[in-house]
Amino acid sequence: MSELMSQSLFIRAANGEKTERPPVWLMRQAGRILPQYRALRQKFPDFKAFVKTPAAAAEATIQPVDELKVDAAIIFSDILVIPEAMGLDYEMIEAKGPRFPKTIQNQEDINILRSGTEAAANLEYVYQALRLTKQELNGRVPLIGFAGAPWTILAYMVEGGGSKTFSKARKMLYAEPLQAHALLQKITDTTIAYLKQQVAAGADLIQLFDSWAGELAPAHYQTFAIPYLQQICDALPEVPKTIFAKGAWFSLEALGQTSCQVIGLDWNTSPMFAREKMGGSKVLQGNLDPCTLYADAHTIRQETLKMIQDFDGKHIVNLGHGVYPDTPLDGVKAFVDTVRSYES
Amino acid sequence: MSELMSQSLFIRAANGEKTERPPVWLMRQAGRILPQYRALRQKFPDFKAFVKTPAAAAEATIQPVDELKVDAAIIFSDILVIPEAMGLDYEMIEAKGPRFPKTIQNQEDINILRSGTEAAANLEYVYQALRLTKQELNGRVPLIGFAGAPWTILAYMVEGGGSKTFSKARKMLYAEPLQAHALLQKITDTTIAYLKQQVAAGADLIQLFDSWAGELAPAHYQTFAIPYLQQICDALPEVPKTIFAKGAWFSLEALGQTSCQVIGLDWNTSPMFAREKMGGSKVLQGNLDPCTLYADAHTIRQETLKMIQDFDGKHIVNLGHGVYPDTPLDGVKAFVDTVRSYES
Repeated sequence: MSELMSQSLFIRAANGEKTERPPVWLMRQAGRILPQYRALRQKFPDFKAFVKTPAAAAEATIQPVDELKVDAAIIFSDILVIPEAMGLDYEMIEAKGPRFPKTIQNQEDINILRSGTEAAANLEYVYQALRLTKQELNGRVPLIGFAGAPWTILAYMVEGGGSKTFSKARKMLYAEPLQAHALLQKITDTTIAYLKQQVAAGADLIQLFDSWAGELAPAHYQTFAIPYLQQICDALPEVPKTIFAKGAWFSLEALGQTSCQVIGLDWNTSPMFAREKMGGSKVLQGNLDPCTLYADAHTIRQETLKMIQDFDGKHIVNLGHGVYPDTPLDGVKAFVDTVRSYES
Repeated sequence: MSELMSQSLFIRAANGEKTERPPVWLMRQAGRILPQYRALRQKFPDFKAFVKTPAAAAEATIQPVDELKVDAAIIFSDILVIPEAMGLDYEMIEAKGPRFPKTIQNQEDINILRSGTEAAANLEYVYQALRLTKQELNGRVPLIGFAGAPWTILAYMVEGGGSKTFSKARKMLYAEPLQAHALLQKITDTTIAYLKQQVAAGADLIQLFDSWAGELAPAHYQTFAIPYLQQICDALPEVPKTIFAKGAWFSLEALGQTSCQVIGLDWNTSPMFAREKMGGSKVLQGNLDPCTLYADAHTIRQETLKMIQDFDGKHIVNLGHGVYPDTPLDGVKAFVDTVRSYES
C-alpha cells in the first residue's frame, strides 16, 4: 500500500488509529441510488455484462466518490463471481435476484468444481476493473475489494438462489458435514487466490460479506464459518480486513478472535453489545438502519449523530445493511454530510 | 378452562409448574410433513378454501395429535385472516406465499379498515373450527389458538407480501410514525376481539407470532411492537400466552416484562442468553434448528437431549421455527419420541 493510502482517513481508522472524525461509506453505494449509475446501467443488456466490463465497473465504483464524497470506494462487482469462476454459472434475474440453473447436490458435483488460483484466473475482469479504478481515483480515497464469505457462497451454490430459510444449504451441514467442509475449503481456496489478486491489483482493504450468517445455529457458525473466515484473513496480511456477518450477533465473541481488523454490525446489534462480547480490540463498522434514510433530513442527522456517540470511537460509519435501491439521494447525502462535518 | 385441561402436561408447564418431562409440539405441525394432511389438502382448490372449511381445519389440527402424539394441538389457520377480516383481501400463491392486491399506503387506507369486534365477526369460520376441534379432541390435549403480532401483520399489509428487507413497512415507521401507530392500534383491537372469541370457542393457550420481529431496530421494536403485544396479553387474563418473536434477541429484556407466560426462542438464541436477559420468570419454548430433523435419528436424539439439558426446566420443547415442509416424517417422530420418553 502506498504512503498516501496508509495515511488516508479510512485506512487509519481501519487500523484502529484515532482519527479527527470517523470515515463514512455505504454498502451498495455504487448502485441504483445514483442517477448516474442508472444511466450507466442502461447501456448493458444485463447486470452480468455490466459487471464484466472493467471500464463500466470502474465508472460505477467512482460515481459515489464524486457524488457523495464518501471516504472509500468499493469495487463494483458481485459476490457470485466466485461460484461462476469455480464452474457454477448463474443468471441475475431483474427484480428477483440470482438463480443457478445447476446446483451442488453431492460429492461428485463438488469434485468437478475448479478452485484456487485456477478458478481465480477466470476473474481477470475484476482485477482489470480494480486497476482502472485505482488509476482513475488517483489517490483520492482508498479502494475496497470484497468477496462473499464461504458459508454464504455455499448457501447460494446449494440453494440455487435466495431463500427464506436456506434449509437446503443448512440441511447439508447436518446431513453431509464432510461434503460441506469439502465445498467450503474449495470456496476458501478460491477466495484467497481471488483476494490476493485483488490486493495485487490495488485493493487497499478487503471486506468479507457473510450475508446469511444469521441463518446458522451458533454451533454451526463456529464449525462451518469461523475457521474459513480465519483462513482468509490469515492469508492476506498486507491489508486490513473487515468481516460483515449479518445477523451473527451470537458469534461476535468468535469473530472478535479472528485476525481481521474491522467487524461490521447490522442495525440490530448495538456497539455496546458488540464491545461487551468482543472487547475493544476491533474497529466497528456500521450500523444505521438503512430505513432511517427515508426520514426527513433532521431525523437522519439526529440518528446519525446519536450512532456516532454510541460507537464512541474506533468506528467506520456505514449503514447496518446495503443501502436500499429506492432510498432518496437527499437522505443519503444528509447521512454522509452529517459524518463529514462531525467534530468530536 | 376445564379442570382436565388445566391439569394437562402442556398447560401445567406453560404456567411454570415443574413437570415430569417437558411437553412437546411443533410449529406448523398441522401441515405438509404429514401424508394425511397432503391427502386432505388435495380436496380443496386453494389454501384459503381449506382454511375456511371448519371441518377440514379441525381434521388438519387433530392429525398431528394422532400421528405424532404431540402434547398440544394448534388450530389450523393463517395469521393473514386478520387483514382480510379488516377489509384487506389476500391471495395465497402456491409455493410463493401470500400476496395482497391492495396495500396500505396512506391514512385514508387505514381509515377505511374495519377493526375490533366488527372485524373479528368475520372470522366465525375460525371459531367454528375451534369448537369442532375441541369436541373431537375430547380432552386429549390442549388446543392452542394464535394470531400474528401487530408489527408482523402491519408488515404484510404495507408490503403486500413477503419481502427480503420489509423496507416499505419499516419506512412507514420512520417516515409516518403516527400512521403506523394508528394502523397498529386497529390491528391490535381486532386481534384482541379475535383472540377473546378464540378463547370462548375453546382455545386453552394463545400464541402470538411475530415473524418479522428480527427486521426491526431495537428502539423500533420497543416503540412499535412491545406496547401492542402488552395490550393483547393484558386483554386475555383467562389463558396463558406465548410470544414467539423470531430474531428479537435484542428485545428479550422487554419481552420478559410483558404479561405473557411463555417466550418462544429461535434456534440462534440460547436459553442461557435468554435467562441472562429475562431472568427466570418466564417459561421458554423452543428451539431446535428445524434442519436438525434432516439428520439421522441418532443425531436428532442427541441434539434434542442436549437442548433439554441446556434449557434445564421451565421448558416447552419445540423447534426454533416452523417445521420445514420437506422434513422427513421419521425425523419429526425421532424428535417427538425423544422428548416423550425423556426422564429427568
